[in-house]
Amino acid sequence: MKKPVVLTGIKSTGTPHLGNYIGAIKPALQMADAVNNQGIYFIADYHALNSVQDPFRFRTYTYEIAATWLALGLDPDKVIFYKQSDVPELLELHWILSCVAPKGLMNRAHAYKAAVERNKAEGLEKDHGVNMGLYSYPILMAADILLFQSDKIPVGKDQIQHVEYARDLAEYFNRTFGETFKLPEYVIQKETELLPGLDGRKMSKSYGNTISLFEEPSALKKLINKIKTDSTAPSEPKDPKNSTLFQLYKEFASIEEVHLLCERYRNGIGWGEVKQEVFVVIDRELTAARQKYKELLENRDLIDHILEDGALKARALARVHLAKIKKSIGL
Amino acid sequence: MKKPVVLTGIKSTGTPHLGNYIGAIKPALQMADAVNNQGIYFIADYHALNSVQDPFRFRTYTYEIAATWLALGLDPDKVIFYKQSDVPELLELHWILSCVAPKGLMNRAHAYKAAVERNKAEGLEKDHGVNMGLYSYPILMAADILLFQSDKIPVGKDQIQHVEYARDLAEYFNRTFGETFKLPEYVIQKETELLPGLDGRKMSKSYGNTISLFEEPSALKKLINKIKTDSTAPSEPKDPKNSTLFQLYKEFASIEEVHLLCERYRNGIGWGEVKQEVFVVIDRELTAARQKYKELLENRDLIDHILEDGALKARALARVHLAKIKKSIGL
Repeated sequence: MKKPVVLTGIKSTGTPHLGNYIGAIKPALQMADAVNNQGIYFIADYHALNSVQDPFRFRTYTYEIAATWLALGLDPDKVIFYKQSDVPELLELHWILSCVAPKGLMNRAHAYKAAVERNKAEGLEKDHGVNMGLYSYPILMAADILLFQSDKIPVGKDQIQHVEYARDLAEYFNRTFGETFKLPEYVIQKETELLPGLDGRKMSKSYGNTISLFEEPSALKKLINKIKTDSTAPSEPKDPKNSTLFQLYKEFASIEEVHLLCERYRNGIGWGEVKQEVFVVIDRELTAARQKYKELLENRDLIDHILEDGALKARALARVHLAKIKKSIGL
Repeated sequence: MKKPVVLTGIKSTGTPHLGNYIGAIKPALQMADAVNNQGIYFIADYHALNSVQDPFRFRTYTYEIAATWLALGLDPDKVIFYKQSDVPELLELHWILSCVAPKGLMNRAHAYKAAVERNKAEGLEKDHGVNMGLYSYPILMAADILLFQSDKIPVGKDQIQHVEYARDLAEYFNRTFGETFKLPEYVIQKETELLPGLDGRKMSKSYGNTISLFEEPSALKKLINKIKTDSTAPSEPKDPKNSTLFQLYKEFASIEEVHLLCERYRNGIGWGEVKQEVFVVIDRELTAARQKYKELLENRDLIDHILEDGALKARALARVHLAKIKKSIGL
């Protein structure tokens, strides 16, 4: 029996930080280890083109993202790993789906609605600065999902709509041209608490409070030292619940270590000591991957080769299904 | 020096009639005979998918359109003749251009605005029945034009906007990513008077007053006999200016023949006689092509072969330019 296809799209709009790692990369890599699935992972570079319109950054982000996932253990022999722009069949399906996609559906898409809200708030015309790549985004997303007859799409709560739209378009197509697409299902990823950033708010590029995933140890240490703490004295008991440092620690430490630090919080511990502990567990988790990452980025040909090889595998699947889809419409 | 590229798109949304022939096909075929141009002709089947969502009709129209142009003398050895869906590079460029295409521009496109007007007139929601294929249509049209670095696009007055949009998108792209596209120019096709249909109004599928291009002689004769005339007696003088039959006649007859019939109008002529003359000149112009058309439609493999061969030539050009475009964005 065919293994269920589990598809994960990876944004390439910036250098990944610890928040991306804990919230998205780590759970997706655990999924890749499940032997019963056919994992498909792709770098959504054509999606990134909406916002990254600088060739140097565009290229750099793709290599950084690819190197990140490979360094962290994504095994291109076990999964299919490619970049979107290497699979032109996706763009053909994007057009075909456009022809059954009601424009009204796009008006209700989250990313577009958010852009309209921002424009309204600033007193601008509603479509100000909105390009058609942003507006048509959900259709390309549906093509990503439907071309590979994906069974399951792991998503965060804010991405459920993508899968719902893919289902909608699949149903519109099937109704018009006969049963062609299977309906994909979303799987909500294990709720990880949001990782806090340097200032205690959610770690996010837009807050400028991030720690890059592969900072060198000395830079990592400096950044951790910048994390806001309160002015309680070292000997005073502290509440782990309200501590940014503790929240970071528990994502990287073992259960025993978490219990132990919890104990030390209650007994009183200096913030400097905590920062050192946080550094140790983060550094420990990422040391090997950091080295691998550096090596990969110095060997871009290898990354190219891995992605090209993945694209060959992806296109072999894509071509078969696209041929069926084209036959359905009369080609 | 490279020959200027002249690009012509051919709709495949129905069986062509005499109005299409005089207004679009004949002038475009004359253009194809100009030795100084590289003619590119394509069947816009992916555009047709917006509205033709029935596989049988979709396929039939493509064959009919291809057979029509070939039967009328389009020489696939002199021009590049392909169907859009055989050149996937177009859909890649469509996405790339989407990322620089302001949504506001699409709101002003003729086809979309007409759909919104129709909805308003019927008290419907403005985007009712509008699919994203219709809405994004101008971007695919721009990709059609820009992928082949077209110099000149022969258009009717109502199609000028397509070329203007292609220029706009080329400029947006060049401004963002550096000089990549040359700006195409439109050439307004020689103003042919609108060919009248059976009821004297413009010949148009939507009026149901058309004469199919390749009607059999007996059916053609019957249709011509249906053309509305007034009740003046055969011996009375008639004004050619207000005569539907005369307008049809002059598009198919030689200048001498036109003068002669004009004379007979002024001296008095029976409508039955005129109808016979109209039949003779139309039949004369189309007899050979009608036979060729029938043969071609009975030999779909030959049509497939010609279009596939054209697609190979088109893709060879497309690939070179798309590689440059992709390099510009950072791929």
